[in-house]
Amino acid sequence: MTARVIIDRIMGSLAGRARGTRRADRLAGVLRTLISERGEATGAALARRAVALYVGLDAAGRAHLFDKLAREFAPDPDAVLRAAVAYHAAPDAKSLAALQRAAEPPRQEVFRRMNMAPGGTAALLELRRELLAAQAGNPALVAVDHDLVHLLQSWFNRGFLELRRIDWNTPASILEKLIAYEAVHRIHGFPDLKRRLERDRRCFAFFHPVLPDEPLIFVEVALLDEIPREVAPILSMDSAVADPRKARCAVFYSITSCQQGLKGVSFGNFLIKQVAEDLRAELPNLRLFATLSPVPGLRDWVTKVLGPEGAGEFGPEASPEQRMTLERFAAHYLTREWSGSHALDPVARFHLGNGARLERLNWMADASGRGLAQSFGLMVNYVYDLGDVERNHEDYVKRHHVACAAAVEKLAREAAPALEKARHTPTFPA
Amino acid sequence: MTARVIIDRIMGSLAGRARGTRRADRLAGVLRTLISERGEATGAALARRAVALYVGLDAAGRAHLFDKLAREFAPDPDAVLRAAVAYHAAPDAKSLAALQRAAEPPRQEVFRRMNMAPGGTAALLELRRELLAAQAGNPALVAVDHDLVHLLQSWFNRGFLELRRIDWNTPASILEKLIAYEAVHRIHGFPDLKRRLERDRRCFAFFHPVLPDEPLIFVEVALLDEIPREVAPILSMDSAVADPRKARCAVFYSITSCQQGLKGVSFGNFLIKQVAEDLRAELPNLRLFATLSPVPGLRDWVTKVLGPEGAGEFGPEASPEQRMTLERFAAHYLTREWSGSHALDPVARFHLGNGARLERLNWMADASGRGLAQSFGLMVNYVYDLGDVERNHEDYVKRHHVACAAAVEKLAREAAPALEKARHTPTFPA
Amino acid sequence: MTARVIIDRIMGSLAGRARGTRRADRLAGVLRTLISERGEATGAALARRAVALYVGLDAAGRAHLFDKLAREFAPDPDAVLRAAVAYHAAPDAKSLAALQRAAEPPRQEVFRRMNMAPGGTAALLELRRELLAAQAGNPALVAVDHDLVHLLQSWFNRGFLELRRIDWNTPASILEKLIAYEAVHRIHGFPDLKRRLERDRRCFAFFHPVLPDEPLIFVEVALLDEIPREVAPILSMDSAVADPRKARCAVFYSITSCQQGLKGVSFGNFLIKQVAEDLRAELPNLRLFATLSPVPGLRDWVTKVLGPEGAGEFGPEASPEQRMTLERFAAHYLTREWSGSHALDPVARFHLGNGARLERLNWMADASGRGLAQSFGLMVNYVYDLGDVERNHEDYVKRHHVACAAAVEKLAREAAPALEKARHTPTFPA
Amino acid sequence: MTARVIIDRIMGSLAGRARGTRRADRLAGVLRTLISERGEATGAALARRAVALYVGLDAAGRAHLFDKLAREFAPDPDAVLRAAVAYHAAPDAKSLAALQRAAEPPRQEVFRRMNMAPGGTAALLELRRELLAAQAGNPALVAVDHDLVHLLQSWFNRGFLELRRIDWNTPASILEKLIAYEAVHRIHGFPDLKRRLERDRRCFAFFHPVLPDEPLIFVEVALLDEIPREVAPILSMDSAVADPRKARCAVFYSITSCQQGLKGVSFGNFLIKQVAEDLRAELPNLRLFATLSPVPGLRDWVTKVLGPEGAGEFGPEASPEQRMTLERFAAHYLTREWSGSHALDPVARFHLGNGARLERLNWMADASGRGLAQSFGLMVNYVYDLGDVERNHEDYVKRHHVACAAAVEKLAREAAPALEKARHTPTFPA
Repeated sequence: MTARVIIDRIMGSLAGRARGTRRADRLAGVLRTLISERGEATGAALARRAVALYVGLDAAGRAHLFDKLAREFAPDPDAVLRAAVAYHAAPDAKSLAALQRAAEPPRQEVFRRMNMAPGGTAALLELRRELLAAQAGNPALVAVDHDLVHLLQSWFNRGFLELRRIDWNTPASILEKLIAYEAVHRIHGFPDLKRRLERDRRCFAFFHPVLPDEPLIFVEVALLDEIPREVAPILSMDSAVADPRKARCAVFYSITSCQQGLKGVSFGNFLIKQVAEDLRAELPNLRLFATLSPVPGLRDWVTKVLGPEGAGEFGPEASPEQRMTLERFAAHYLTREWSGSHALDPVARFHLGNGARLERLNWMADASGRGLAQSFGLMVNYVYDLGDVERNHEDYVKRHHVACAAAVEKLAREAAPALEKARHTPTFPA
Repeated sequence: MTARVIIDRIMGSLAGRARGTRRADRLAGVLRTLISERGEATGAALARRAVALYVGLDAAGRAHLFDKLAREFAPDPDAVLRAAVAYHAAPDAKSLAALQRAAEPPRQEVFRRMNMAPGGTAALLELRRELLAAQAGNPALVAVDHDLVHLLQSWFNRGFLELRRIDWNTPASILEKLIAYEAVHRIHGFPDLKRRLERDRRCFAFFHPVLPDEPLIFVEVALLDEIPREVAPILSMDSAVADPRKARCAVFYSITSCQQGLKGVSFGNFLIKQVAEDLRAELPNLRLFATLSPVPGLRDWVTKVLGPEGAGEFGPEASPEQRMTLERFAAHYLTREWSGSHALDPVARFHLGNGARLERLNWMADASGRGLAQSFGLMVNYVYDLGDVERNHEDYVKRHHVACAAAVEKLAREAAPALEKARHTPTFPA
Repeated sequence: MTARVIIDRIMGSLAGRARGTRRADRLAGVLRTLISERGEATGAALARRAVALYVGLDAAGRAHLFDKLAREFAPDPDAVLRAAVAYHAAPDAKSLAALQRAAEPPRQEVFRRMNMAPGGTAALLELRRELLAAQAGNPALVAVDHDLVHLLQSWFNRGFLELRRIDWNTPASILEKLIAYEAVHRIHGFPDLKRRLERDRRCFAFFHPVLPDEPLIFVEVALLDEIPREVAPILSMDSAVADPRKARCAVFYSITSCQQGLKGVSFGNFLIKQVAEDLRAELPNLRLFATLSPVPGLRDWVTKVLGPEGAGEFGPEASPEQRMTLERFAAHYLTREWSGSHALDPVARFHLGNGARLERLNWMADASGRGLAQSFGLMVNYVYDLGDVERNHEDYVKRHHVACAAAVEKLAREAAPALEKARHTPTFPA
Repeated sequence: MTARVIIDRIMGSLAGRARGTRRADRLAGVLRTLISERGEATGAALARRAVALYVGLDAAGRAHLFDKLAREFAPDPDAVLRAAVAYHAAPDAKSLAALQRAAEPPRQEVFRRMNMAPGGTAALLELRRELLAAQAGNPALVAVDHDLVHLLQSWFNRGFLELRRIDWNTPASILEKLIAYEAVHRIHGFPDLKRRLERDRRCFAFFHPVLPDEPLIFVEVALLDEIPREVAPILSMDSAVADPRKARCAVFYSITSCQQGLKGVSFGNFLIKQVAEDLRAELPNLRLFATLSPVPGLRDWVTKVLGPEGAGEFGPEASPEQRMTLERFAAHYLTREWSGSHALDPVARFHLGNGARLERLNWMADASGRGLAQSFGLMVNYVYDLGDVERNHEDYVKRHHVACAAAVEKLAREAAPALEKARHTPTFPA
């Protein structure tokens, strides 16, 4: 490659970037009009144009736009300070309204207006997805994201969501999305999914009226006789279909958030509890609502504690003693390891935060490659006892106490000596 | 009535009020839990309880609750000031987030949480309706209302609204509501409504997905050959049904906002423009989109200018000269009288703010009692020329200039001498 | 009017008739093509043309067409006889098929083909309605009607009908039809109908998928504490709405067949029993399924027996003795008077034929003009006891025995002396 | 196996058969009641019982039932003869009604009554399917089948069918059926089907309201630039999706009847013409409606004419001369070989009977194993020219003339010498 060619390429790339940037500037101009008085009469048309312009932006243009949103659509610190002083002096309705006007970033109104256009909500979810990705390189975008997520939380308020049962009569276009989105136990095509939608399995998803074909989150449930110890029988495509009316236990064995653009807008808690209520009403024989959940951070943590070599001992052919040691470590990990005010394990954080109880550890419950890689195949059951959920949640939040079965607590306590020993090895994490 | 009885009644009433107050206190406690960390696990159940408690409150309880929302769920002025100072010192994402946390009244989160319950949105609309009524006696409630309307504007964002055509196949339960809500030209029962839904008439309404049976706003349209000069032929139940495909002019002859709880959340602009677009797509012969609108403030204003006696001359049997004088006054009133930055007449304010043009005055266009009482029977046509709407709106907002036909402008100018003369009479308003 | 004018008119009328006749001849030609081999390729288009031609025929044309259908689209007697002889000689599949081909009137295939066109079914119902009217003047049409009703019975087979609940959420266009069709207790506009659709009232209708907006038959039900003695409280618009879950008795107080073109195709039996089953499933407290029914033929029969003067004594101010006499006559009339193998009273015929039991006579249960005119205001209750329905029906059909309560049977027996006496008066019917 | 065991088995089998027979006898009893007067009151319940009993019958029971339907539910030859004589003597409405009563097999009423039960129609389709299979062993069943098909033709009248577009939003449960039913070009799972439902492909099916989840017949259409010469590009899953609005030619490349129980009830003609009309309305650029069709009987016929050895020469590597010979034979076969009054080839029979024109022969258009096996890979295009359809159909039916392009006619004429030659070989079919 000659210097000429290299220079041409760089120049071309710069030109492309400049074009993207110019487009982003043009869009920023439209957005300013959109939130001005002038934008009121033609709000719908302008909003449509803004969405179209955004959709047409390339990567450089979007980065430039995000930057402008961060810098130029933020509250004016002087104005905020003046309003805060005035509110402090006389905290009445008028000074409060002025304060709110001053403190609300203009980009919030930008997003509200863009949302008015057909396809606006979908475009904003896409924008959020890219904003999240762009944050790594530009910390100022955190504030933009904060504003957008604030609105999304309000718009995707549970009161606006529709719970739909997904079954084999659901349109293929939606089923296809479940197959693509499923994040816990991969779905191998339509025939696999079909077994998961038979009458002894259930699937429910939340939808928003403005995105009627886009599942936001979905949960898969198996209706069983008892709390399961392994996941393979649940996932098997060849298992006989059981009579759901005889099931005593509803097992949430997979829960997947579908929209990256809705990260941090949480529906899972509502979904599980709503589904539990609905199933209980439909199937009075159900006594137990439990999960069969992965422990995605277990191996990482054990490896930190014991080093890669130590962790290597907990494979499928581990001895009974090694297995016992693993279970003790797992019990400790799930009940006593924290990251700030949350359980260290992300799945534990979700269920314990919802008020569930850690019921049982199941060795070699998921022998898939992924299961072994994450947690040596170990899975756990959380139990949702709707009567205890509030107390458990409060203990968890206020006292950093994890509700768990006595056997789990015993295992966790028994982990102490081994941890003590590991602590004196050079690999123990600081 | 003996003193005993009177005292008993007062005591009973006080006891009742005390009971209502206690209930409101209990609800306030629930609301505090609802927005605490603890409320997360059982958010749905708590929200349901809060809504149920609110619905069960009597008038005294509601007044007490509103007061608590105003006082106890407002931002802390000290915290706001600290956050504003910090943001002023270092306006970054973190300080901005802290500022927004400090400046957002906690009652906003209260309303968001209540909205999660089934029926929550409807309960909040009802709450808003009562809040508006209660403001007269308690100015502090303005701030509560400001917060609620802020959320309602976000939730009833045009992007979430569904435009539905209303016709004779619409459920009777919805048609019945149109009959009850209609605010411009009363609908006298189902047979009257049926004529307004024939194929040469149209009716469209916005709905929100969470209130699928509640029209938010609706507009009635007549498909005619030309811009009409009077309303009676449009309202007549006995008129022949015309072929809509031959119509050249779509006339918006009635537009009604249905929900008092959504006062200030405006959809009318979007509704008219969307309907105009849809009709144009369906019926390519349509050339003109106009209104036949009342002038609700005309008589009041004329009475202020000329005194009751002077105003009395513009009745149905007015002479041609008197009629001319009235039209001049009306033209002046609609194009030159302002209340702050808005046209004085509320209907003019709506259409001119939307970017419409004042096209024509029609003497004795509405001979109904109400028409005579409001405006001596005079009605006007506004024209929506979609190409001019943005410019008209901008002239109106920035330059206080009203777009109008040359004939109307001429009438307005001719009003000057008469106004000058009236100004020297004692009845002219200050 | 001069002779010239009269002659012109007659000639004009004849010319009009001739034109109608020519059009009917043209349609008959199309129908012949339609059922020929040639019609197969273009069946849909030809059927559409046939339906359009039929719809365009005037009265004279239709009469002419009916006549042609009777004469020219009937089985050939020679061919039938040959086929019958062959079948008699060798009753196998082939000879049977040949027999059926010969015996089936070609007009049946005409109707089947016309039914293929969009709107074909509706056109055939209209044709049937007119055919029924035309039969009086042309007995040959009975055979045409017989063929059409044979097909309609097959097409409107209960398996194809859809039972829909009618309530206040039903489209106004359908509710309007119920108001127009109601044949038993007139509905005075939408507000009246609304009360009949509240939750302590029910309304159900059968629809056919091809006529989704046309109720075929509907029944109105009141959910009450006990079997009612009069109809006015049920029809009252001002009555309080009761809790349907507490009702013990479902009362069918009105049943109306909507389509004259379906006369003789009976759905009522299925409708009542299906509704009874569905209500029982929804409201487990329901114990009794009964009617409050008119006795439309009572006054006519009593008048025949006693003469107009004798019948005149049973008005609203009848003495207790007269009232008792009337009830005896009514009991006799309903349980012992037959027309061929059916009860003489048409409503009794319907309910007794369905297997219901005559439970009670209610004096002055319908004080409306119509009620007094038909039956001196007397109404009766039939009870549907689903366990007895088959036996009752069989007794009725095979043994001409009417299932009734002991009290009714006693009244009927007590009628004998009065009847004996009346028999010796000159007015007793032969 | 000892003699004892053998005897036990036979006895067991006989006992099973006897049990099945007894159940069939019981069902026959129910059916007799069902069509008696007594069955009227409890028709719905009895019909339900009959359907349930039928569904529960084993093979022996069904065979026995069919036999009873043939023998005991047939018209009485004596009664038929009497009625025919009477009708011959006086062919009026009364004698005709009596004739029809006598000539109609009672099993028709049996089927009508069974159809009233929920699931009745589906059960009758199943019954028909088995009846068809059983006919081989019992020719008397032909008459039963004749009666059932007569009713099915009436019930599945085109006027009652609903045309639905099938696309990727269709429920998976229905798509799965298309995959299973497809009879022409196998669908390899959902991803394969998805390509066939993209916007440059179309799929339409007829449904009956009473079987809303069961496609009766479906057609697959490709929207192309011109009439295609081979099927592989149409079936390819990897092809780019084209803009349907630019297509000039709609190609029906697969049409499948789904219900064996509806054999002989033909919808294909209606389906193709309706789809052609609808597509023309939606896509005004479409100029041509054609098929790409197999010639399923070609190899068999060629083999008969030339012997297996002669036929063996027309494989994929045939020389240009051999290919020309094959095309001549194919042209002759499709235009001049008849079975009674129908074209010998079943697909030709369908399209020519519908009035289509044979447009072109395409050598090696279907190189699949099946394509080679049936027709040496040769496929043909039929063209539906809606203006010519009626005339073509008439020529076909009345004059045994096949509408075809001049080039095809030329090929057919050129086949004569080769056929003449073949006729003098011993393998030529008699």
